[in-house]
Amino acid sequence: MNTPPKKSALHAQSGKMKPINRTIFFVSDGTGITAEILGKGLLSQFDGINFRQIRFPFVDDPEKAADCLSRIREIREQDGIRPLVVMTMMNPEISAMLRQGDALFLDLFEVFIAPLEKELGVRSAHTVGRSHGQAGHEYINRIAAMNFAIAHDDGVSDADLKNADVILVGVSRCGKTPTSLYLSMQFGLRAANYPLIPEDFERDRLPDTVLPFRDKLFGLTIAPEQLHKIRQERRPDSKYAALDTCRQEVAAAERMMRREGIEWFDMTSRSIEEIAVQIIQAINKKE
Amino acid sequence: MNTPPKKSALHAQSGKMKPINRTIFFVSDGTGITAEILGKGLLSQFDGINFRQIRFPFVDDPEKAADCLSRIREIREQDGIRPLVVMTMMNPEISAMLRQGDALFLDLFEVFIAPLEKELGVRSAHTVGRSHGQAGHEYINRIAAMNFAIAHDDGVSDADLKNADVILVGVSRCGKTPTSLYLSMQFGLRAANYPLIPEDFERDRLPDTVLPFRDKLFGLTIAPEQLHKIRQERRPDSKYAALDTCRQEVAAAERMMRREGIEWFDMTSRSIEEIAVQIIQAINKKE
Repeated sequence: MNTPPKKSALHAQSGKMKPINRTIFFVSDGTGITAEILGKGLLSQFDGINFRQIRFPFVDDPEKAADCLSRIREIREQDGIRPLVVMTMMNPEISAMLRQGDALFLDLFEVFIAPLEKELGVRSAHTVGRSHGQAGHEYINRIAAMNFAIAHDDGVSDADLKNADVILVGVSRCGKTPTSLYLSMQFGLRAANYPLIPEDFERDRLPDTVLPFRDKLFGLTIAPEQLHKIRQERRPDSKYAALDTCRQEVAAAERMMRREGIEWFDMTSRSIEEIAVQIIQAINKKE
Repeated sequence: MNTPPKKSALHAQSGKMKPINRTIFFVSDGTGITAEILGKGLLSQFDGINFRQIRFPFVDDPEKAADCLSRIREIREQDGIRPLVVMTMMNPEISAMLRQGDALFLDLFEVFIAPLEKELGVRSAHTVGRSHGQAGHEYINRIAAMNFAIAHDDGVSDADLKNADVILVGVSRCGKTPTSLYLSMQFGLRAANYPLIPEDFERDRLPDTVLPFRDKLFGLTIAPEQLHKIRQERRPDSKYAALDTCRQEVAAAERMMRREGIEWFDMTSRSIEEIAVQIIQAINKKE
């Protein structure tokens, strides 16, 4: 995906603001997801450059390597400048084939496997896709956690809440759903979420369903102005979306969480990744 | 999390099967998720070693760095061998503080930022957490995609299917839900999923709701034996879980998908990550 150049862009060679078009390949003999995540993390550090991204997953035989190599060469011609290739390749022969192309190769495994082998005193398996195998306990746990998160989204089901690792509460649309999903998918946590609704604020107490699980409760909140924008998209010009409603609900929710001693996190200027990691830290502190 | 040693473990120094206990830190001035993903990918290449994992996210000031450093030293004492530290640190001063500890430091950014700066002719922003900022178009798109995936899980809603990027079909419990979620979260795709149920097989045609969107349909399938195991956990000894039912449903679903020309993927020995990437490749081919 191309991103528009940002204001702080400075092209060092010309000293002028200038978007540069470069192509980055994410290549792997596995899914390439690790290469893509790290590659994007690196690219985000460089402003003002338009990156075209090309994925080449499952490059695990000479034929696919030849395909990839010819695409690298094609892009080299087309761009008039060599592309970047971020790789996670376990097979050194396939890797060597690709390196016949004119590109900047950044091989994540190559750089780190050798020092790790030395440090650990064992040879690496050099096997493809080990980290994403289906058999492992961790994988099965993550799938179960995702199914749990879906089944316990937005208070849909009260059943089995005792098996939750964490229960998120907060007003509608403050970010509970994506945060729950992220916790389940990335960290294998069974995350339920439960909305705080006007009826709860009238009674001025937490929903009965979650009360027995106070030690697993965490709150989310968000600035009323941002909540208003989000709700507007869902139900334009409704009472539900009105700025005034958002202000009242957020204030009531925060009051309730403060009184009940529930630790809460503010989504306003934080991403779901950041909030998820903070929740994990908070859980660890409790244990 | 400790994982049990695997059978193929070989301790090179002794030549004997032997679990080794080592500690790995994932340290970052951001969430540390990139460090953790790459770190785990690397560890999965080393059999027979028991890794204890410790996360240190948001290490972005000297005080937190001092905390982390003292934990590294503590573990060094406790393990009797230096720990591994996989880092993504944008701030070189904080990074230097940590390096006073006795550990093997693998800094993902340090290794790659320098060659990238040289290649691109621009200085990196050296800003923390850029990749996980909340403002970006890509982030907003991912959140919207996750909400879409939840709202269109398991055929719950037919509304808005025309805005789906992809619609997955398959028998109950073949893996549609986690695959949809993964597509939305990792790649920002609006993924709906729709079960194929006994009524569909009796009529021997696809559900009417998805028929108008044939170009977005992809199928999932799974070995009947594995489906049986998964369904047994959900509803033990039910007709729904019976091996015979699983065999019939899977056969009927595959027959239908073949006849309708729907490309499908087999979850039996593939992870959701692998299937998700294959689906993306298939979508790209269509475009």
